[in-house]
Amino acid sequence: MKATGKVYLVGAGPGAPDLITLRGADVLKRADIVFHDALVHPATLALARRAAKVAVGKRCGKHSTAQRFINKRLIDAAHNYRIVVRLKGGDPLLFGRAQEEIAALRGAGIDYEIVPGITAALGAAAEAGISLTQRGRARSVAFVTPRVGEGEAPSGWAKSAAAADTAVIYMGAGQAAEIAAALIAQGVARDTPTAIVENATLPQARRFVMPLSELAGAGELGISGPAVIMLGAVFAASLAATEEPSSQSARVTA
Amino acid sequence: MKATGKVYLVGAGPGAPDLITLRGADVLKRADIVFHDALVHPATLALARRAAKVAVGKRCGKHSTAQRFINKRLIDAAHNYRIVVRLKGGDPLLFGRAQEEIAALRGAGIDYEIVPGITAALGAAAEAGISLTQRGRARSVAFVTPRVGEGEAPSGWAKSAAAADTAVIYMGAGQAAEIAAALIAQGVARDTPTAIVENATLPQARRFVMPLSELAGAGELGISGPAVIMLGAVFAASLAATEEPSSQSARVTA
Repeated sequence: MKATGKVYLVGAGPGAPDLITLRGADVLKRADIVFHDALVHPATLALARRAAKVAVGKRCGKHSTAQRFINKRLIDAAHNYRIVVRLKGGDPLLFGRAQEEIAALRGAGIDYEIVPGITAALGAAAEAGISLTQRGRARSVAFVTPRVGEGEAPSGWAKSAAAADTAVIYMGAGQAAEIAAALIAQGVARDTPTAIVENATLPQARRFVMPLSELAGAGELGISGPAVIMLGAVFAASLAATEEPSSQSARVTA
Repeated sequence: MKATGKVYLVGAGPGAPDLITLRGADVLKRADIVFHDALVHPATLALARRAAKVAVGKRCGKHSTAQRFINKRLIDAAHNYRIVVRLKGGDPLLFGRAQEEIAALRGAGIDYEIVPGITAALGAAAEAGISLTQRGRARSVAFVTPRVGEGEAPSGWAKSAAAADTAVIYMGAGQAAEIAAALIAQGVARDTPTAIVENATLPQARRFVMPLSELAGAGELGISGPAVIMLGAVFAASLAATEEPSSQSARVTA
């Protein structure tokens, strides 16, 4: 039986519910069923007034099984509903495993559409008030993740980060010490200005700035929300501000 | 006199007017005056129903003068209006010269806020239907621009692009031959799958796929709209599709 439903892969954005796109909000309003990541804001889900909501958030480990299960549920839903939404944090096409879902949908002959979202790096940049590229200072920015999947060879993520003027590391706050060591081993200067932004664009957002040499101590910051680590010369002014004698919040600019 | 206005640096997104955020649309609705890039969609500007609209789009050359003029106009406007919007294509904090505007506003003691937007790379990825990162294949993506500003040293943009699993080159379609040569000189394989997406997310969007070795010929494609060049293994399937005997559109998958 040919499915009559269409699947929309929608980016929910970096955190704040009003940072979804107009198109994304419109699709949610019309949705019959929404499969959403664990971290999507309740107010974003509330846009899908008449939809069934199914949390399919994944945590580390057991990714493949979970992903196959999500793929199957999307295909099944397209046979039973008209408008099916797969709602992902950030943008669907950056660190979102969308290609596996797209391949499954294509394989099953199901119509789909991608609705972009604001990726975490740009939410964090807005939170920090720092442009990731700057004229005369940074003309390249790399988004990387240090996570290694099952059967995946250790890759050049640190090399990619080191080669860019600005680097943004996704899903790395839990392994800050390993990340700092890998970057320094790639030749990144120990005094490179480094920022951590947690819960960007939300009221509980926190920002920290430090030289790369102090990133290893980030485990003591108590970061539990979604966070990115960003580094490069563009954060030099932020770091300098924390080192002024008048600063009450040395190393912390939240 | 202390300015009473606030300046919002708003990302208009990659092209389609419904790919602005809810927050961006709301700010435009309330705006008293909007200073906008040349390429912002008329329907996006129309959201700013009661605002004066001022085009401040820049073309290559004479950047610095134009930027100083824009900075001054933003500051003046904050003294004369309550809600001032600086509306930029894509995201304000990627290749948008926002830091210069932020520095000017800070220097003048003017309140400001950044509203993120969908950056061109993610609009192009959605247009191509390809995830820029893929499990087991691409865990890093670099956004770079080959443009060199006045007094700016030639930089490592090609090195950054070569070190990432996926690279997206902004503002480079007019110099495709130079870009191809620079990437190949950095060791990027000549058969690396390469895509050009023009006018992403708009009805007149066009997509082209080719091996990197053929990028030098992109001048013949007649690209005149905003475009990005993207390359890496994630585009392998797109390239393979153009090489199938059944394909009617060899090298062109628009």
